[in-house]
Amino acid sequence: MLTLAIDSSTNAGSVALISEDGLIGEELLNLTNTHSQRLMPQLVSLLENSSYEPQDLEGIGVGLGPGSFTGIRIGLTTAKTMAQALQIPMIGVSTLEAIAYNLKYTSAYLCPMIDGRRDRVFTALYKGKGEENLEAESQESLIAIDDLLKELADIDEVIYFIGEVATKYKDKIIKEIKQPKFVSSSFNLPKASIIGELSLKKLLEGKEDNLFALTPNYLKRSQAEIQWEKKHNN
Amino acid sequence: MLTLAIDSSTNAGSVALISEDGLIGEELLNLTNTHSQRLMPQLVSLLENSSYEPQDLEGIGVGLGPGSFTGIRIGLTTAKTMAQALQIPMIGVSTLEAIAYNLKYTSAYLCPMIDGRRDRVFTALYKGKGEENLEAESQESLIAIDDLLKELADIDEVIYFIGEVATKYKDKIIKEIKQPKFVSSSFNLPKASIIGELSLKKLLEGKEDNLFALTPNYLKRSQAEIQWEKKHNN
Repeated sequence: MLTLAIDSSTNAGSVALISEDGLIGEELLNLTNTHSQRLMPQLVSLLENSSYEPQDLEGIGVGLGPGSFTGIRIGLTTAKTMAQALQIPMIGVSTLEAIAYNLKYTSAYLCPMIDGRRDRVFTALYKGKGEENLEAESQESLIAIDDLLKELADIDEVIYFIGEVATKYKDKIIKEIKQPKFVSSSFNLPKASIIGELSLKKLLEGKEDNLFALTPNYLKRSQAEIQWEKKHNN
Repeated sequence: MLTLAIDSSTNAGSVALISEDGLIGEELLNLTNTHSQRLMPQLVSLLENSSYEPQDLEGIGVGLGPGSFTGIRIGLTTAKTMAQALQIPMIGVSTLEAIAYNLKYTSAYLCPMIDGRRDRVFTALYKGKGEENLEAESQESLIAIDDLLKELADIDEVIYFIGEVATKYKDKIIKEIKQPKFVSSSFNLPKASIIGELSLKKLLEGKEDNLFALTPNYLKRSQAEIQWEKKHNN
């Protein structure tokens, strides 16, 4: 089942092609320019380089965020448009889960984090069991970094802090957490190859998300929503 | 230190750009067509998409194999030519080590393997310690799969068999090994991003390989060498 995977929730935008036989290709660019300029060219290039046509695709997986509101919308809209036009099933995957999966074969706590601005992070806690799947130890949330570290301060085991923003708070994390660990750069990024693995697995089980109902995993309201409510409540 | 990394030792050819600030981009194609057709276009595309010129490069890392003789030569020659033309340092990295590094944060035995044809594999044994670096538990070798499994049969701990060829021998491995584990597709591939991490680290320490002395890590003699010797010994 030839599956295209897309993630553009953070600066690291990537596309991947995967099937039951394994990963076919992946293109990742970790830049600050907008995904609207690079996602489609990446996608076209990946398909061309792999000698596939869009009509060959049999499923789509997409990173739902959390992360950049605009980035998520670009990826999700692209995925939905392709799924609808090609009439193929799609699956949405949490971008935090995808980051944690970079370390899924460890037996440790995994704390993926994505920048939520103003010293807040999008995060969740997982536990690796040295197996294919992770155990979710908490809900995803947007939380002040200081509050997060207070919550994790009592854990006596190793916690891997994963994600580029973890570097920014490294000193703070080392001070508050008993056994903190950090990872090298390529393990910090959400990757379409992982989104592809997670979504292909569900697609092969016959699962699919309703493309008309699937929404971005913002974890907070957009400024536009807050202002709309303010205006209409007053 | 902007570093370009290349690996074309197996079907999975990839290029990556990395610096002290992290992974900038990666393009990977896991296909059976020749690297001579895809390596340079990948490289040009990665540099262009990241808005870098070849002149911006400050170091090069390359996968030395083992793997496909022709594939390794294509990658190594490309890397050497660029290092010489741009007058920048280069580092060669074992492709087996790069595959094992996909699971470097585990605390288990790691047995990366690459197809050596005729039921033989290029392999080595590493031990993860949940840290940045792996411990090499054996030398790299080309060995019959049956002999390798006999050597590992007494190990009472988990061994991850990593590499696409591990799938081919899955039944055999499960039969002979006490606690075998396998990984999902994207963890099976050597990746330029990992080659980049390993070589950048050495380059930043001031290390470099002599580009005129660096040779492919074939681990066996080529058919041409064997025939040359046969001819000249008789």
